[in-house]
Amino acid sequence: IPFSRTTRCTCIKISDGSINPRSLEKLEVIPASQSCPRVEIIATLKKNGEKRCLNPASKKIKILLKAISKERSKTSP
Amino acid sequence: IPFSRTTRCTCIKISDGSINPRSLEKLEVIPASQSCPRVEIIATLKKNGEKRCLNPASKKIKILLKAISKERSKTSP
Repeated sequence: IPFSRTTRCTCIKISDGSINPRSLEKLEVIPASQSCPRVEIIATLKKNGEKRCLNPASKKIKILLKAISKERSKTSP
Repeated sequence: IPFSRTTRCTCIKISDGSINPRSLEKLEVIPASQSCPRVEIIATLKKNGEKRCLNPASKKIKILLKAISKERSKTSP
């Protein structure tokens, strides 16, 4: 049996919308690998744990990462 | 019983070393929240699934993220 080249990417649909950094619980960056030829960026949302795939090429990712870094001091009351 | 202000950060020790983007399985970015007042960046390594906390203020993070984005086409043979 030849080794089948199944690609197992996590993301099927990629959202191009922006995400409010305050509604973000976690952001995962998964590098390209044997199982998936592209970088994947998965945002987990706070309210329902919904996972949303983001476009790694989008500038919104950079903006989001910057925003997260800045939230640092604001969040603690 | 008063509500105890327990901080539940994932990271206890923060590594300041650099990580080879090729040895990286996943990078997680967790924004500051009620449970942890600081941004946390957790790298999961391929070989043993070891998790390592990185310093969000470090420039190495930016370099790492750039490297991940560039790996895109190189990985597929």
